[in-house]
Amino acid sequence: MMSPDTADLSLKMQQIARQTDTVLTHIFDEEKANGAATRLVDAMAYSTLNGGKRVRAFLVVATAAMLMEDTHTDADIPAGAWHVAAAFECLHAYSLIHDDLPAMDDAATRRGKPSCHLAFDQATAILAGDALQSLAFQLLSVPSTHADPMIRAELVLNLAMAAGDAGMAGGQMLDLEAETQALDYTDTARMQGLKTGALITSSVRAGGQYAGANADIMAHLAIYGKAVGQAFQIADDLLDAEGDEAIVGKPLGQDDWRGKSTLVAHLGLDGARQEARKQIDQARQALAQISPVNPLWHRYLDDMAQYIISRNA
Amino acid sequence: MMSPDTADLSLKMQQIARQTDTVLTHIFDEEKANGAATRLVDAMAYSTLNGGKRVRAFLVVATAAMLMEDTHTDADIPAGAWHVAAAFECLHAYSLIHDDLPAMDDAATRRGKPSCHLAFDQATAILAGDALQSLAFQLLSVPSTHADPMIRAELVLNLAMAAGDAGMAGGQMLDLEAETQALDYTDTARMQGLKTGALITSSVRAGGQYAGANADIMAHLAIYGKAVGQAFQIADDLLDAEGDEAIVGKPLGQDDWRGKSTLVAHLGLDGARQEARKQIDQARQALAQISPVNPLWHRYLDDMAQYIISRNA
Repeated sequence: MMSPDTADLSLKMQQIARQTDTVLTHIFDEEKANGAATRLVDAMAYSTLNGGKRVRAFLVVATAAMLMEDTHTDADIPAGAWHVAAAFECLHAYSLIHDDLPAMDDAATRRGKPSCHLAFDQATAILAGDALQSLAFQLLSVPSTHADPMIRAELVLNLAMAAGDAGMAGGQMLDLEAETQALDYTDTARMQGLKTGALITSSVRAGGQYAGANADIMAHLAIYGKAVGQAFQIADDLLDAEGDEAIVGKPLGQDDWRGKSTLVAHLGLDGARQEARKQIDQARQALAQISPVNPLWHRYLDDMAQYIISRNA
Repeated sequence: MMSPDTADLSLKMQQIARQTDTVLTHIFDEEKANGAATRLVDAMAYSTLNGGKRVRAFLVVATAAMLMEDTHTDADIPAGAWHVAAAFECLHAYSLIHDDLPAMDDAATRRGKPSCHLAFDQATAILAGDALQSLAFQLLSVPSTHADPMIRAELVLNLAMAAGDAGMAGGQMLDLEAETQALDYTDTARMQGLKTGALITSSVRAGGQYAGANADIMAHLAIYGKAVGQAFQIADDLLDAEGDEAIVGKPLGQDDWRGKSTLVAHLGLDGARQEARKQIDQARQALAQISPVNPLWHRYLDDMAQYIISRNA
């Protein structure tokens, strides 16, 4: 059952998602105007503007807004924060395009639409993913994103490390290796922490960096982000094991949770739900240590932690 | 016949290439120590440490050294400049790995060794390319690369734009499209300018940015870099049309220069050679406008412009 809190959060998430899509659409138009290859940008836009929930964009924007003056309404949020949110969604979209390739997960659909390599072709899909990664770093480093170059450089380093060989791509590698050699609980948690958790965590960190948060707040945000990221991955596994295919919009059961290296396989359904709740408690405790400039956004982030494990898609 | 100048340049290029490889080896070791997936870093290192001539690293280091105080010997070049050089080689290596994939050029060998997707597997090759791109931006944004965050942010933006949809990846897209629709001279020049020229040009710009060059010098460097990039691509086409397979180390004639969208196809062999020489003259004229702090490196960059079209591999 949906609590009133969750209902508020759902509305706010929809608003943030809509604004993120507007920003992304504008960015893709600008890339075309600046001489980008049309078909390439079409493929990038196809896979980025796909009706996603924009969890990463939400975490960027909400974290920044919680810590900044004069961000009471969405219209008060600076354009640069939307750039940062868009950068995370570009990076996430790139990872999904490459994940779906025949040589990777070989997925025919993504959110109910043909995968990028089927809507276009494999070569275009590879290039679209590649160019989305470049675009993410372009968005973080462009002066219009933030007046302080130190913050822009920090945003880049934060995303680069979350995306790379000791982050998302590294987690994908460990996941591929897990197909031939089962991982124990510790290695499974490490793999999933890199594969999914790293980008979620870094989106929270990016919101703090954008707002110029001090080291103390950044430390609390890191705990919040890491716990939310872990809970998010467990929830994904749970959805895969028990979710409703029609709601999620992709073929389920592909992880074959009884045999594969997922936390659900190691902990069982109940154990995984318990672990996710434990992570959410940790996240909320860390968040409670932060005195927000804007209590409303603090509340959204608190609700978000709970939403992570209550979502059904 | 090799002139004494070219002999000097060759030796210097070998020294720079060796040092770049040393720096890259150290970087890959550090990534592993920092929790990166071992197999992924092995694939990244396999394709990056491949005996390449390091033209991009050379342009970064030589341009920076030309403009900085106290860079008379290679040992005087700051560690951060090598980071920048390594970043460009990582980005270049990623593009070669993805180019060689079955869905792209389907190349079995690269510099006489099995392509990454054959030495490892396709999924690993896709991820290795992806992670090399992340690593490039990590190297540019990390504080140890340059004390001034403005310069780090500029380096990131410069590379991101050169790599993305209006740069290298965009050029690749246009090249793929040219397989089914022949390009005229203007579109061919544009495609090749993006595909190969953008990264060459941006490596020269990066050297200037690293050294903190003023707008005047940056403008001259941009002309030098663009002309060298265009000459480089024409030289590649010429090598493909008339080169010696044993020296180049890859199957030649794949471009089928009589029918495909290359500048050689549009201009003929003699016309292409003439165009390359014209570009080199432009490059040298632009370089001559710069008063170097270190004339020796100025000389190397002048020789480099000529080397571009005299190289045989």
